[in-house]
Amino acid sequence: MSDVTVIGVDELTALVAGILANAGFGPDHAGAIARTIVAGERDACKSHGVYRIEGCLRTLKMGKTVPDAVPVLHRDDSAVVRVEAGGGFANLALETGLPALVERTRALGVAALVINDCTHFAALWPEVEALAGHGLASIAMCPSYATVAPVGGSQPLLGTNPFAFGWPRPGEFPYVFDFATSVAARGEIELYRRAGKQLPEGWAIDRDGNPTTDPAQALDGAMLPFGGHKGSAISTMIELLAGAMIGDFTSPQALEFLGTTTIALRHGELIIAFDPARLSGGRGDPLVRGELLIEAIAGQGARLPSQRRFAARRQSLADGIRLTAEEMAELSRLRQGGLDAVR
Amino acid sequence: MSDVTVIGVDELTALVAGILANAGFGPDHAGAIARTIVAGERDACKSHGVYRIEGCLRTLKMGKTVPDAVPVLHRDDSAVVRVEAGGGFANLALETGLPALVERTRALGVAALVINDCTHFAALWPEVEALAGHGLASIAMCPSYATVAPVGGSQPLLGTNPFAFGWPRPGEFPYVFDFATSVAARGEIELYRRAGKQLPEGWAIDRDGNPTTDPAQALDGAMLPFGGHKGSAISTMIELLAGAMIGDFTSPQALEFLGTTTIALRHGELIIAFDPARLSGGRGDPLVRGELLIEAIAGQGARLPSQRRFAARRQSLADGIRLTAEEMAELSRLRQGGLDAVR
Repeated sequence: MSDVTVIGVDELTALVAGILANAGFGPDHAGAIARTIVAGERDACKSHGVYRIEGCLRTLKMGKTVPDAVPVLHRDDSAVVRVEAGGGFANLALETGLPALVERTRALGVAALVINDCTHFAALWPEVEALAGHGLASIAMCPSYATVAPVGGSQPLLGTNPFAFGWPRPGEFPYVFDFATSVAARGEIELYRRAGKQLPEGWAIDRDGNPTTDPAQALDGAMLPFGGHKGSAISTMIELLAGAMIGDFTSPQALEFLGTTTIALRHGELIIAFDPARLSGGRGDPLVRGELLIEAIAGQGARLPSQRRFAARRQSLADGIRLTAEEMAELSRLRQGGLDAVR
Repeated sequence: MSDVTVIGVDELTALVAGILANAGFGPDHAGAIARTIVAGERDACKSHGVYRIEGCLRTLKMGKTVPDAVPVLHRDDSAVVRVEAGGGFANLALETGLPALVERTRALGVAALVINDCTHFAALWPEVEALAGHGLASIAMCPSYATVAPVGGSQPLLGTNPFAFGWPRPGEFPYVFDFATSVAARGEIELYRRAGKQLPEGWAIDRDGNPTTDPAQALDGAMLPFGGHKGSAISTMIELLAGAMIGDFTSPQALEFLGTTTIALRHGELIIAFDPARLSGGRGDPLVRGELLIEAIAGQGARLPSQRRFAARRQSLADGIRLTAEEMAELSRLRQGGLDAVR
């Protein structure tokens, strides 16, 4: 255990923000991105933790994000709040738009936040958790890169298109899910390839559109949506609502703009927020009704989504975040080398 | 072919409305329910066509719907329109609330229609298609009866909880999906039982929570959500948003109220509508962007949802609706016998 470093959330946030600022991100972006990355690491969500820093730097190095973009907030009397991210990371755009979304939702019962032209690494639980912290329910979605074939199709077209939902729970972490609408994440297929293992059936097709369990052929072909034609339809809905409708990239357009799937995404994002107190119309306490259902699920022994993440969070907040020697070395390498250290 | 009756939409609507009125439904309800049932029959959606009439009558006979309920519309300057259906069928409540929802959505960009205390037979495509006809995108959802176990659980708790989406297409029928969030509908399992066939793996568990392919044990146990833990989470979201949040029944509460799954549902319903013209913020034409994606899906040979239904609709509108001698006899039996004819 001597090779484990224990570090507090604030300390790690400052360290990550320093790496990002040193590489050229403006201080506001460096702070906002660092808070999201450290939230992932805190929750033992390794795929969205410090591992992501190099991808952020690579995106900047390739000229595909604007490191000092100033998000512009548009709000009026309507139920739509818009933040033009100006090609910068979504994290600062979200922080810019969130107070207005909360205000509009409380005023009108339902409201939407549209973020346009943002760089994003596509975990949406920070969005829905932030709203749950204000007592609001929400749905968040965004397109991705075109790496998933529609069911019955043969070529990559849809993205892994995450879909997230948050529901406030009194005295508990919220009910939160956030998942890719593909069967698996691209990174999982890459892990099978490295391990020399065959994929489960139904994960992917080869470049000719035939089912394959060979990870290399899958990476050269397309992934498949979760849940057959139903998941394919939900993924399509996300392209239409959070791409076409908000005047932003669909997944094929995002891939064309980026030219690669190895850097952070560029697209828009749609968040729909609900004020349960207003939606309930005085017909009882919606959160109490919600608890009855959630407790009945847990009472059957079924796992609630995000529970592993929340358990890790409790431990991290109590004892600090544990990083391996390799992770600390990576932080040091990126701190010293900046964009030159990007592989 | 001599045993097929060809009947026009208007003529069949009048016939069905007459059956419902004769059985005791008020004329407004009879008309609204008949329009929905005939829309199902027109689309060759047999499970929601004339087959449903007897269920409507049975619901009335058991005292679980109010046949002359007057829906009460509540609207204000907010983004939430509410219709208290007063225990009557949802169809008239929807017709009552739809104009206000369209107006609020155009005014604010996003709005929601909540229907409370309605009897419903749980096809949601009429809802989202009606909104697409006004150029609006929408999502609709409602709970059901508790017949589905959460993934990892052992007992029925969730409903088959339909989830529907509509997107307007210029000069075409809209992009529409509407599906149960269970793997299969309860009626499909019943068909396996009657045919003496085993179910596919993954559809159901027995009363002890163990996986089963025996349809009788499945009907005595619980169905499973589509798409594993992801579908289970979406189904839970529907319980929370369209049950708990809107101050109405979740699926266990609906089953407790009804005491059976053989009559029409009682619950609430949530419809979220979006005005693409407002959401796009002037960043191009959202419907043109949508067509690019939809045409790319169809261009791969992938089937768009609802296409079979739309093809049937074209034929019905051109040539009339074709009913078998058995279906005509059923209509005659229910017309003459009223509630006494209900089996």
